[in-house]
Amino acid sequence: MDYTVAEVLLSEVLGTAILLLLGAGVVATAILPASKGNGGGWLLINFGWGIAVFAGVYVAFKSGAYLNPAVVLGVWASGADTFNSTMDANFVNFLLLSAAELVGAFLGAVGAWLAFKKHFDLEAAPGTKLGVFATGPAVRSYGWNLVTEIAGTFVLVFVLLTFAKNPAQMGPLPVALLIVGIGASLGGPTGYAINPARDLGPRIAHALLPIPDKGDSDWSYSWVPIVGPLIGGALGGLLAMAYVV
Amino acid sequence: MDYTVAEVLLSEVLGTAILLLLGAGVVATAILPASKGNGGGWLLINFGWGIAVFAGVYVAFKSGAYLNPAVVLGVWASGADTFNSTMDANFVNFLLLSAAELVGAFLGAVGAWLAFKKHFDLEAAPGTKLGVFATGPAVRSYGWNLVTEIAGTFVLVFVLLTFAKNPAQMGPLPVALLIVGIGASLGGPTGYAINPARDLGPRIAHALLPIPDKGDSDWSYSWVPIVGPLIGGALGGLLAMAYVV
Amino acid sequence: MDYTVAEVLLSEVLGTAILLLLGAGVVATAILPASKGNGGGWLLINFGWGIAVFAGVYVAFKSGAYLNPAVVLGVWASGADTFNSTMDANFVNFLLLSAAELVGAFLGAVGAWLAFKKHFDLEAAPGTKLGVFATGPAVRSYGWNLVTEIAGTFVLVFVLLTFAKNPAQMGPLPVALLIVGIGASLGGPTGYAINPARDLGPRIAHALLPIPDKGDSDWSYSWVPIVGPLIGGALGGLLAMAYVV
Amino acid sequence: MDYTVAEVLLSEVLGTAILLLLGAGVVATAILPASKGNGGGWLLINFGWGIAVFAGVYVAFKSGAYLNPAVVLGVWASGADTFNSTMDANFVNFLLLSAAELVGAFLGAVGAWLAFKKHFDLEAAPGTKLGVFATGPAVRSYGWNLVTEIAGTFVLVFVLLTFAKNPAQMGPLPVALLIVGIGASLGGPTGYAINPARDLGPRIAHALLPIPDKGDSDWSYSWVPIVGPLIGGALGGLLAMAYVV
Repeated sequence: MDYTVAEVLLSEVLGTAILLLLGAGVVATAILPASKGNGGGWLLINFGWGIAVFAGVYVAFKSGAYLNPAVVLGVWASGADTFNSTMDANFVNFLLLSAAELVGAFLGAVGAWLAFKKHFDLEAAPGTKLGVFATGPAVRSYGWNLVTEIAGTFVLVFVLLTFAKNPAQMGPLPVALLIVGIGASLGGPTGYAINPARDLGPRIAHALLPIPDKGDSDWSYSWVPIVGPLIGGALGGLLAMAYVV
Repeated sequence: MDYTVAEVLLSEVLGTAILLLLGAGVVATAILPASKGNGGGWLLINFGWGIAVFAGVYVAFKSGAYLNPAVVLGVWASGADTFNSTMDANFVNFLLLSAAELVGAFLGAVGAWLAFKKHFDLEAAPGTKLGVFATGPAVRSYGWNLVTEIAGTFVLVFVLLTFAKNPAQMGPLPVALLIVGIGASLGGPTGYAINPARDLGPRIAHALLPIPDKGDSDWSYSWVPIVGPLIGGALGGLLAMAYVV
Repeated sequence: MDYTVAEVLLSEVLGTAILLLLGAGVVATAILPASKGNGGGWLLINFGWGIAVFAGVYVAFKSGAYLNPAVVLGVWASGADTFNSTMDANFVNFLLLSAAELVGAFLGAVGAWLAFKKHFDLEAAPGTKLGVFATGPAVRSYGWNLVTEIAGTFVLVFVLLTFAKNPAQMGPLPVALLIVGIGASLGGPTGYAINPARDLGPRIAHALLPIPDKGDSDWSYSWVPIVGPLIGGALGGLLAMAYVV
Repeated sequence: MDYTVAEVLLSEVLGTAILLLLGAGVVATAILPASKGNGGGWLLINFGWGIAVFAGVYVAFKSGAYLNPAVVLGVWASGADTFNSTMDANFVNFLLLSAAELVGAFLGAVGAWLAFKKHFDLEAAPGTKLGVFATGPAVRSYGWNLVTEIAGTFVLVFVLLTFAKNPAQMGPLPVALLIVGIGASLGGPTGYAINPARDLGPRIAHALLPIPDKGDSDWSYSWVPIVGPLIGGALGGLLAMAYVV
């Protein structure tokens, strides 16, 4: 199937929008006041994000289902010649895909806000409301927070790039489980952005949306979940290039 | 295999009955007094509904396993010519399938009541007993509750209609996981009916069954989980028609 | 592959032993004092039993992996001519398979007791220690408890017998998820024996093993998880005979 | 594909490193102070380890993905002639694979420490900090602790060796679920090492790393999670040799 560049970019927009609609949604379900799932716990959040990726990957079938600039970068670093059947692997296309993912993440977060509108209107700590949109550190330490985001994204990209060596055909299930696992295992310190678009798009939404008593959008931290995942993704891709033959 | 219309409708009745027997059952397990699973939490409820759909889809193998008028409508809106090997896509057949689903949902809820009979006889808040049968809003606001139900059903139908583009054969597993995810992510505000039959059938059962101190069946809210899912399903189908080539 | 009757019966013994080693084990993990998983909750128990069946089905590959007299009966009621490649469907073979399952369940429960020996030696309510081995009602009412066990086993057998109509090849995964779901949804009132061997074998083990302060083995209830599952399994098989063409 | 011995050993190093990075990580997420997943519970830990194995098996595609000396030993005991396409089954190769797994486990644990660096620096009971690295008994009793580790590893190896008799192709999913189940069911007494490398490598890391107030590394227990799994794995392999035809 030959898709146009516009179709491919729309695919990334839609896939990442579904990712964030469900991903921001599960955090809202788990932490916003009066939600029926309030207090549902970490494993609920992990499964919610895992299935958010599961759904997003199905939706983004025209574009390779990256949903994440760090994965695009990692695949490129691993030596791929193309990003999908339409786009060669190069810097312009990396930027185009990343921009599409950012737009999708923004739109998905707006959707989650609409779905939880009455809960955002209730009184809650500003950090709780921001937490639905963007990640933040449990213990603030930019250097170590960066290490954590690098580790999580390294695992994501490196393991992803070994999937093709296994003959079992399971569609988006392995990546969904991998996301559940990265969140369960490496999410404790920073809330596992492991995806620049997933963090920045919703953070912009938080800054723009008319949410009562929302507090600031913690821009001083916002570079960590951009830079960390890009470094981790690149490292994962480079190791895959060397190891996955 | 050529099935008669009666066989196809029975298939939807049975599949939706299994869906509600297990779906109402997991809510009963999680919230009814003295249940061994009381307090089991939101993820328990999410997995319970996901596997309820999983089982129902296996059972309804003669009819396309819709189990949900909003999915029938969404598939129709996406441009399908037939609902299954027996029925063309048209308004009469939409009504027939929906009626079968409603009957099945009613019967399944009666089954769940029987399985939990002694727990329904114990003292509990009326809202708890109603909660096993029908959904209700965490914060009552018909307009915003409608938005939430539209969002959840939109995701259900739109993502469902992208499954066929992935080569992996996993039977009803993807839709089961999608249901787990929609519940985890978008269920917090309204309890995710995302299915008119799933809500109305059991609500009728609640109204008719001899449950002690059951309170009213909250008919003033009952149109939201009918209208919202139908709108969301139609929107999901329309977007799929435009996007899924 | 042609197996002898002895090999087939050993297969059921081993499969059911693994089922109970893991199944009794997850209850022990969740409720015995000082266990690292104490208080792990209902979903933990549901997944534990689901994966116990998953493992047992792999192990019992020579015998059709019934692990449950109610499933043997249900398959027979559905009109099957054979139970596996070695045994015709008849009453003697039903008894042989059931006896093998009972022996396996007994052995598996003894294994779980050994694995948790020091925890059984700690002080705990007798009902807690019995609860690792045998099921019991949350609200004692033999008639309604029977209804619950019938419902759960009916779902198990009827849905199982629809699996073959779906083209997806997923090994023991669907039955494992079905067990998770039945436990999550219909386990609240009686703890879901849904299997005469699973309950009786470990109950005998409880009666025989030297467990401090173990209390009695509640024999007055013990017929319910035998009779209920057999009725439910037969009903599930009969409906499958009528419906699954 | 013909791999060199060095490539095969690197495969085991990398796979076991990913296993421990995620496995130690999920314990850190669940128990270290200030972690966002603190208190996430036993099922979180079980799923975390299950997916850690899932990811490690994908990564170790050149070496048969043992990740565990007890599995190497069990496969050997079951009568296998080769460990993978490069290495015959013999004592030297058993030692080589085990050493690679030990190195990988050490490296993965160091990675988990780095990802949670700021949380290890916070005040916590020494046993909590050790618990991220190495297993320990809930009730100390070397003999019975050994029994528990034997039982868990026996199940792991014996069930693993029956997978090939089932025609479904599901990649590393069955072993991942089996790990979830063994942890859920038999992990309560000792924290389920079921793998000498998984316990010893991180214990060495704990002894060497500059962790504040880390306490001792409990070397007096350290032989149990080495000897128990080796015995259990060998028993599982021997039973498989006799039973799995």
